[in-house]
Amino acid sequence: MVKQFVQDEEKQRLLLDGHEEKHFTAGEVVRDIIIGVSDGLTVPFALAAGLSGANAPSALVLTAGLAEVAAGAISMGLGGYLAAKSDADHYHRELQREQEEINTVPDTEAAEIADILTQYGLGPEEYGPVVTSLRNNPKAWLEFMMKFELGLEKPEPRRALTSAGTIALAYVVGGLVPLLPYMFVPTADRAMATSVGVTLAALLFFGYVKGRFTGNRPFLSAVQTAVVGALASAAAFGMAKAVQSI
Amino acid sequence: MVKQFVQDEEKQRLLLDGHEEKHFTAGEVVRDIIIGVSDGLTVPFALAAGLSGANAPSALVLTAGLAEVAAGAISMGLGGYLAAKSDADHYHRELQREQEEINTVPDTEAAEIADILTQYGLGPEEYGPVVTSLRNNPKAWLEFMMKFELGLEKPEPRRALTSAGTIALAYVVGGLVPLLPYMFVPTADRAMATSVGVTLAALLFFGYVKGRFTGNRPFLSAVQTAVVGALASAAAFGMAKAVQSI
Repeated sequence: MVKQFVQDEEKQRLLLDGHEEKHFTAGEVVRDIIIGVSDGLTVPFALAAGLSGANAPSALVLTAGLAEVAAGAISMGLGGYLAAKSDADHYHRELQREQEEINTVPDTEAAEIADILTQYGLGPEEYGPVVTSLRNNPKAWLEFMMKFELGLEKPEPRRALTSAGTIALAYVVGGLVPLLPYMFVPTADRAMATSVGVTLAALLFFGYVKGRFTGNRPFLSAVQTAVVGALASAAAFGMAKAVQSI
Repeated sequence: MVKQFVQDEEKQRLLLDGHEEKHFTAGEVVRDIIIGVSDGLTVPFALAAGLSGANAPSALVLTAGLAEVAAGAISMGLGGYLAAKSDADHYHRELQREQEEINTVPDTEAAEIADILTQYGLGPEEYGPVVTSLRNNPKAWLEFMMKFELGLEKPEPRRALTSAGTIALAYVVGGLVPLLPYMFVPTADRAMATSVGVTLAALLFFGYVKGRFTGNRPFLSAVQTAVVGALASAAAFGMAKAVQSI
């Protein structure tokens, strides 16, 4: 039996080497850029459209828009950083707790291994050797419990910071697109017409790219992204008109 | 050997029943509320402060603020819904792909089981029986690969919609807090003073609650949340002043 599996092991290498699965995972940086840009395109765009709806002059629309971009970039970036940081803290607390449990109640933790593997239809004679082996290898045991019991992945240390910076920067870039027309066209109404055109085109483009990178149908994604932007600005426009008419 | 593990199995039940781990997981609805509220508190607050810094009248600060709340709620809610939706689509595509691979290249997929378990220091004689058992139970095999090869959890069908609604509503509630003073205090400067006080208190409170629910130190979380809000509004304030002075 053992010998057979050792032979299998050699066969496995060959099988794995010859096989590369086409499961999609977007690069995290690309995902951060897309998050920042599409959000940056949407909210400042909607705000600017809303204020134009309230007949505010271009200068003021621009002031509000750039103030929103500054606030949004910091809120998204710093907020995202703190969220990632607290996830990492959470992971390390759970790691410590799990380690303590392996030390203090090993039989219970061993029973949990069996419990997890039983969910996949494994019987005592199949999971038994696994339990025994993990008990003899506490480091692997801890890793096994973190992933298989708690479903927690080890967080990358530098990730939080780079992610925050990327999202914030992308938000600024995205936010400047709908605001540019207001810098050059003094009358807000005409500036808004340009802004709507430019931004909808940008939303369609980024929706398409987003679809490509997240493995979804690009054209559907393009339309969805543009629709969210359009609805958001329509709501902002309506809200501004309503408030103004009070 | 088998007999021994069968006895263990009875012992396991008792061990597991008597043992309830204190691993923390926040209720998803609570998390959505916190996300929406703390974001809603931050950006509209910062925008209002920024515009007040540009000496805009309260009425206009309110117009811009409410327009931002409308845009932000839709962008966050609908955007969040589409993100969750595309995650679900992604899961189902991967499920299908994995199923096809189990059907077409079972030996390779079996080798991948071994490959995964080898990472936990298991040898052929330990993972061998597991591989054999999973190969005889294709449904469990598929679930095993989804969770342990791809690390994908089965998404809840209604989750996306409820999450979107919760976040959007929470964003509106959070966003109204910093804007209320501008409804009652005509001069923006004095309205801003009140808004700053009320909002910082709210940020501290929600930061504390967030810390409690995410298992982090509540007071640290309270301070961090308030600092993000303060920095965001300071940036918006500075940006508005800068744009205005051009």
